[in-house]
Amino acid sequence: MSSKIKYIPWGEIATEISNLNTDQVVLIIDQNLWQLYSKDFKSILKIDGKQVILWKAPDGEKVKNINEYETCLEFLIEKGIHRKAHIVAIGGGATSDFAGFIASSVLRGVSWSVVPTTLLSMIDASIGGKVAINSKFGKNLIGAFHLPSNIWMDFNFLKTLPEVEYDSGKGELLKYCFLNSSIYSEMKEKGFSENIIEMCAKYKFDLTNGDLKEQGNRKILNLGHTFGHAVEKIYQIPHGYSVVWGMVMIFLITGKENHLYTLRNLIEIADVKLTEPPWFQKSIPINEIIEYVEKDKKKSSLTQVELININQIGDSVITPVELSDVEKYFKDNENELRVFCF
Amino acid sequence: MSSKIKYIPWGEIATEISNLNTDQVVLIIDQNLWQLYSKDFKSILKIDGKQVILWKAPDGEKVKNINEYETCLEFLIEKGIHRKAHIVAIGGGATSDFAGFIASSVLRGVSWSVVPTTLLSMIDASIGGKVAINSKFGKNLIGAFHLPSNIWMDFNFLKTLPEVEYDSGKGELLKYCFLNSSIYSEMKEKGFSENIIEMCAKYKFDLTNGDLKEQGNRKILNLGHTFGHAVEKIYQIPHGYSVVWGMVMIFLITGKENHLYTLRNLIEIADVKLTEPPWFQKSIPINEIIEYVEKDKKKSSLTQVELININQIGDSVITPVELSDVEKYFKDNENELRVFCF
Repeated sequence: MSSKIKYIPWGEIATEISNLNTDQVVLIIDQNLWQLYSKDFKSILKIDGKQVILWKAPDGEKVKNINEYETCLEFLIEKGIHRKAHIVAIGGGATSDFAGFIASSVLRGVSWSVVPTTLLSMIDASIGGKVAINSKFGKNLIGAFHLPSNIWMDFNFLKTLPEVEYDSGKGELLKYCFLNSSIYSEMKEKGFSENIIEMCAKYKFDLTNGDLKEQGNRKILNLGHTFGHAVEKIYQIPHGYSVVWGMVMIFLITGKENHLYTLRNLIEIADVKLTEPPWFQKSIPINEIIEYVEKDKKKSSLTQVELININQIGDSVITPVELSDVEKYFKDNENELRVFCF
Repeated sequence: MSSKIKYIPWGEIATEISNLNTDQVVLIIDQNLWQLYSKDFKSILKIDGKQVILWKAPDGEKVKNINEYETCLEFLIEKGIHRKAHIVAIGGGATSDFAGFIASSVLRGVSWSVVPTTLLSMIDASIGGKVAINSKFGKNLIGAFHLPSNIWMDFNFLKTLPEVEYDSGKGELLKYCFLNSSIYSEMKEKGFSENIIEMCAKYKFDLTNGDLKEQGNRKILNLGHTFGHAVEKIYQIPHGYSVVWGMVMIFLITGKENHLYTLRNLIEIADVKLTEPPWFQKSIPINEIIEYVEKDKKKSSLTQVELININQIGDSVITPVELSDVEKYFKDNENELRVFCF
């Protein structure tokens, strides 16, 4: 089983769905998006020869909890979902993470497709089949690997995206500039563009196709995420911004000053609206960060965590590090972290 | 990834676990079993160089609900479960269905092994990686396919199995006599034995290895289950018995009288304590059955269900049938069903 990425205008989604080989479609859509686009999407509900079941999801991360998961599952089962049903997720990463986990577990798994409507989702969440809901102790700790059959993309959705979400998406995108030198060069030469979005999507698509279950090289996509997830949880800031601050942390505590300069430069080129980290001139919550990392998925044994770092642009490295050493790195660099800003 | 079946005395489980390549083990065990065997299993909790986390599961099907699922997940995450942890399930099918679904979804999946302690589990639930919890609308509707690394079997557990569970297990075992002519001959010639249990386990093991996700021939293992699950839910009777009554239903409504005679004969040989079906001389709850089947996983489209039947011993057939026809079959044979007994 593998995915396909297809760039189509959203008006053609109904046609794509009508071509699916099933008589039952479940549409899981972000409720804000439904309000914005319901006129355009109503045709999906009336596709000839198919029962279409609509589930409007609470917007954003709110949907990714086990109560919503249960409510949605029982709703679909009550509606008589069968094993040849096809789920279509329309929304950002939270919606597709949720819908994908539903698809992976209802009746032990049905097929699904995704229409990413945020920048973050176009370059990350919609690709590679990682689906999940959140635990009360951290993000994405309950989930599965379940590839969508189709990823239908239309950049026009970005026009109605709230600015902060668009901007935060660019934060995540900067990660790819460190992982891949072609993406880096394109950004340096031509700046942020739709072409860069496509390049990032393709880069992740190729990487995850070769390593669906994250046994190997796929792990490098977690650059900035180990500490970024902690930052996101502690300060409640958007995911893409947190990834940037996560990169700042890993580069700074491992003495990669050149990468901090590069990051600063990329932030400027892509016009990401970040200046001061949330901990600026306050104390760094080191204990909370370590505690979070302990519960996160990157831990590979009782005492070690796998850190992703960059030797040079396009050359990443995965290193198992003792948690006690991570704590030490933070303590040794506490003062520099405290005053860091772009 | 594939499973291994190993027949070992339970005293060696601790040794097997100590040989696992991990520093963290989660033991999910049926709480009744823990009371019976805690003296024997305490050594597992003190394996050198491994953290062993114990989770005592409510006994039987009670554990297979989404609240227990959430409680157990959050407990493991709070304890700091990492992605190289290994879950060991000890108990009957309910315990392993539950533990396996936990293993499939915590941190997007960790490895697991199972020690089946009931007859039903030895010949069915522990093999093939089908894991699940129940929906309020039916059994096993929320789950995954997640193969255990090891299946460690010891027939000695059967000595402390409540008689009704042992007897119900034999009910499920009769299914295999219809599916495979070697198992049928062995039963006819030598009666029920440990050898038959091994033959059934191996038969399911081989069949599911070739069709993990139940796209093809694995479906024949559902013989007796489409209606059996409905009987189990409606009359609240043990699973293995329900499978027998499910076979009675499918054979009777499709006019396979010879198979009913064979079934009667096998019941006698295996000494299964069944005489009258729960609906004997009452009205058949046809509507409830159809309603249940509509929500069950065997439905393959909005109006069709896949029925498993037997042409002759060892020759099974999967037929998509309109739900309206299923209803008709029941109505046409209502009187005969009502008076059927062994």
